[in-house]
Amino acid sequence: MKIISIIAKPHGEKVRQTLEKVCVFLAGKGVGILFEEKAAAVMGAAPSDHDEIREKSDLVVVLGGDGTLISAARILGSRQTPVLGVNLGRLGFLTETRVDDVINTLNDFLNDDYRVEKRMKLHCHIEEEGRKTLEIEVLNDVVINKSDLARIIEMEVFINGDFVNRYRSDGLIISTPTGSTAYNLAAGGPIVHPETETIIISPICPHALTNRPIVISDNSNITVKLRSRDENVSITYDGQVWRSIDPTMTISVKKAQSPTVLVVPKNKNYYSLLREKLGWGDS
Amino acid sequence: MKIISIIAKPHGEKVRQTLEKVCVFLAGKGVGILFEEKAAAVMGAAPSDHDEIREKSDLVVVLGGDGTLISAARILGSRQTPVLGVNLGRLGFLTETRVDDVINTLNDFLNDDYRVEKRMKLHCHIEEEGRKTLEIEVLNDVVINKSDLARIIEMEVFINGDFVNRYRSDGLIISTPTGSTAYNLAAGGPIVHPETETIIISPICPHALTNRPIVISDNSNITVKLRSRDENVSITYDGQVWRSIDPTMTISVKKAQSPTVLVVPKNKNYYSLLREKLGWGDS
Amino acid sequence: MKIISIIAKPHGEKVRQTLEKVCVFLAGKGVGILFEEKAAAVMGAAPSDHDEIREKSDLVVVLGGDGTLISAARILGSRQTPVLGVNLGRLGFLTETRVDDVINTLNDFLNDDYRVEKRMKLHCHIEEEGRKTLEIEVLNDVVINKSDLARIIEMEVFINGDFVNRYRSDGLIISTPTGSTAYNLAAGGPIVHPETETIIISPICPHALTNRPIVISDNSNITVKLRSRDENVSITYDGQVWRSIDPTMTISVKKAQSPTVLVVPKNKNYYSLLREKLGWGDS
Amino acid sequence: MKIISIIAKPHGEKVRQTLEKVCVFLAGKGVGILFEEKAAAVMGAAPSDHDEIREKSDLVVVLGGDGTLISAARILGSRQTPVLGVNLGRLGFLTETRVDDVINTLNDFLNDDYRVEKRMKLHCHIEEEGRKTLEIEVLNDVVINKSDLARIIEMEVFINGDFVNRYRSDGLIISTPTGSTAYNLAAGGPIVHPETETIIISPICPHALTNRPIVISDNSNITVKLRSRDENVSITYDGQVWRSIDPTMTISVKKAQSPTVLVVPKNKNYYSLLREKLGWGDS
Repeated sequence: MKIISIIAKPHGEKVRQTLEKVCVFLAGKGVGILFEEKAAAVMGAAPSDHDEIREKSDLVVVLGGDGTLISAARILGSRQTPVLGVNLGRLGFLTETRVDDVINTLNDFLNDDYRVEKRMKLHCHIEEEGRKTLEIEVLNDVVINKSDLARIIEMEVFINGDFVNRYRSDGLIISTPTGSTAYNLAAGGPIVHPETETIIISPICPHALTNRPIVISDNSNITVKLRSRDENVSITYDGQVWRSIDPTMTISVKKAQSPTVLVVPKNKNYYSLLREKLGWGDS
Repeated sequence: MKIISIIAKPHGEKVRQTLEKVCVFLAGKGVGILFEEKAAAVMGAAPSDHDEIREKSDLVVVLGGDGTLISAARILGSRQTPVLGVNLGRLGFLTETRVDDVINTLNDFLNDDYRVEKRMKLHCHIEEEGRKTLEIEVLNDVVINKSDLARIIEMEVFINGDFVNRYRSDGLIISTPTGSTAYNLAAGGPIVHPETETIIISPICPHALTNRPIVISDNSNITVKLRSRDENVSITYDGQVWRSIDPTMTISVKKAQSPTVLVVPKNKNYYSLLREKLGWGDS
Repeated sequence: MKIISIIAKPHGEKVRQTLEKVCVFLAGKGVGILFEEKAAAVMGAAPSDHDEIREKSDLVVVLGGDGTLISAARILGSRQTPVLGVNLGRLGFLTETRVDDVINTLNDFLNDDYRVEKRMKLHCHIEEEGRKTLEIEVLNDVVINKSDLARIIEMEVFINGDFVNRYRSDGLIISTPTGSTAYNLAAGGPIVHPETETIIISPICPHALTNRPIVISDNSNITVKLRSRDENVSITYDGQVWRSIDPTMTISVKKAQSPTVLVVPKNKNYYSLLREKLGWGDS
Repeated sequence: MKIISIIAKPHGEKVRQTLEKVCVFLAGKGVGILFEEKAAAVMGAAPSDHDEIREKSDLVVVLGGDGTLISAARILGSRQTPVLGVNLGRLGFLTETRVDDVINTLNDFLNDDYRVEKRMKLHCHIEEEGRKTLEIEVLNDVVINKSDLARIIEMEVFINGDFVNRYRSDGLIISTPTGSTAYNLAAGGPIVHPETETIIISPICPHALTNRPIVISDNSNITVKLRSRDENVSITYDGQVWRSIDPTMTISVKKAQSPTVLVVPKNKNYYSLLREKLGWGDS
């Protein structure tokens, strides 16, 4: 028996209606369903914990925006379970399937007639006095940033052991191609097609105007050391998880071993998504 | 008798030597000297408090960088006492006089043979439930920014009562022309000549790529309201004073009544300063 | 008797219908009408030449886009005759009045119940071997640019005799606040409110990344000298008039003595125009 | 017997001295030397034509700047002959070897003790009425640009047959990673490490502010069609070769089959080159 998990951002009536339709359909097909906590609450069902979802799912359906899908990817960790992102009205870069298409798409999935895209993730760890103190994987970006009080922070970046630059800026974004259209774009970084095997490093409001974004190969090992004594510096993972950091730590970022596997529309076209999301052609 | 106050950032030996030279010279000219706390500590003299400095000084000499001069301007408040910025090695946008020229410049000042530039300041106040809760003046900029944890904040900006835009960004910089070469420049704003009568509004990493910096007349009354419920938002004055703000408050910014008066080199040339500070011509 | 001139870009049926409506209305009010060549052709009327339009008009009505209004401003030269810009569907920065509002607006004009905005122009002349060889006024911008063949040109810029910078770039835009939302914006320059008394200098694709746009006072006298020996350099006025230039020439740009006077909607709001034209709030 | 060709930009005495040293050294090693036209003129030797250089060389030594090396790469066409770029004073992105190191580097080459980097080129052809009318390969970039007279051109871009965008801009740069630090950088594009397998598309001064640079996979087939009727549009190859184009033509760009092979310093470090060339760390 196949098992499909459902992770939802509870937006009210629309989510409930969609969840019901999906459950009726899947039950009719003899598919087992696991509900993550919030989806379970909407349905009045028993919730499954993240371990169970990670280990048992053949597919994870996400109802919500890109943020919900990104946290679903974190739940799956290194598992390459396909993830189907369904948006609730507003097209997302990662949640391209419309609510109206969800039953057809699930049917195609059960018939093994679907298209996937593998999206590279970044693996990040922090080393403190020789010990790794945190390991996490991100689908969009790792961001080092100053607190609201500080004016500027100073960071030394190395790639594969080679010194790159001492950045003096509000912070630094290390992004996957998937994340290139998120924070990276707002900070002046380029749009990078997800099928390129690259990592993007973009300083946030750098003091030196020549410190422009760099696109490097995804076989690069990036390390960052804080130089400033300011203690109000933090690191943020996909804009969702964070911790404070200090100059005794070394931050390491490299390509994760396993990608996130997205179920995408069969007629998916990255450029039409860009045009729609960025309003190209409007003016 | 003329009175000259000295405000210094204690950088070690160089400051002490310069202070001594200045004191000997001024004493020989029969000028009274007031020492701000840190300068007093260097000289082993009695410190004068900020009220005394503000009320009695005919000139304030600043030994240090632009940051030291900016805090001196805050001490002087609405007084138009001339300020002489002396840099300790690294040319500043506001501290253009070299240590080697300090005695000559003081001599010229005492002979009424000097050149000044008036620099517009911004007056900022916060209104909370009908009460003004803070009034402050800045020489460079007022910055509203998200904390390190938040991804984005939402702000509505009005100018002279007209709605301008709802910004979704890391923050917003409201800058004087003097401040245009500081944070504003790092955030993508233009260089604005200090003699223009303008204010610059630059969003920091705006989500909408069309939200470009705007230069407006200095007779504009700017108000900002937070729209986001995020409580981790702060306002920073000249990068030196800060407080947290929330959506119940209205932030108002307009031209201050009195400018800061800088004593500048007689052969002062703004463009040569730009070339030097920004490294024009290097590549 | 009042005289109103009409300058139109012949877009077909809509222009003809609007012209007819306007003529019937103005005739009924006893107003004399002059038709510029193209409007005359649409109406089958006798055309008036530019001298007659410049000397006799109490108002010039422009039917078309911003480009048509800009050429009308050039016809008027230093005359401060009010200009009413009527757009034929697509809102313009200078042609804000809708076709449906044209009769009401004309009626208000005849009743002396209207609002105007004065827009600074730039006066440009070229000096060659001591002789002025061209004098022209622009409402938007003066642009010096390389030909398609050249890679880069080198220009020295002076302001009020002070050397500013040696630019190595594709070209240079000297813009009024009115022109700031035109080519200047595409080249990375700021939005500048028309009521500021400023001029904007923006290099086009400068080789040195620190060569950022500068906003200066409108009492500045700008001169530009080509340094490169490349003979394929040209100067363009408002994107409509051009000539080739070479290193023997000195290009001078300063504020024109007379502004262009625009008749604007009574409820005119510059920021709402920005939001509409730049698509603020769309994403 | 090995044959080494020499291509030089005749800068005067320094080139002559270096050429003499190189010739004496190579003669002593029993290496045959071919001189391209300008180098031959400097040495008073018989020149070899480009066919001979392409077919017979085991190594091509370039004395000059990046531009000279780029034209050498065009002479070699699809041959993967190693190219050694020697700069005459000013470090280049492609000419990293100093004059003082040229003999040692040649000695290492003859001892098969050297390091190379393969640099992707772009292959470009134009199709007109079903016929290919030009085929050329570039190491830096293909640039479509408006003439000095036109204000804007309109281009439709397709990647692997998918419509990407209709650009309204001054032009379009299609760049290799090698070319990313050339014109692309001045136009706002990112720095892209040469070892990434990517192509960069950057519009020049786009009318729509959301039309940001895109980095795509190097297996992309790019086609461009002019939409504007303006006849003053041209295409430039590596900034050195050009022709005019019109809307009847289709421009196609893809990865060339063979890379250019550069002999690089053994301790080569891309990031130190960036720091030096872009002045990182200066301010």
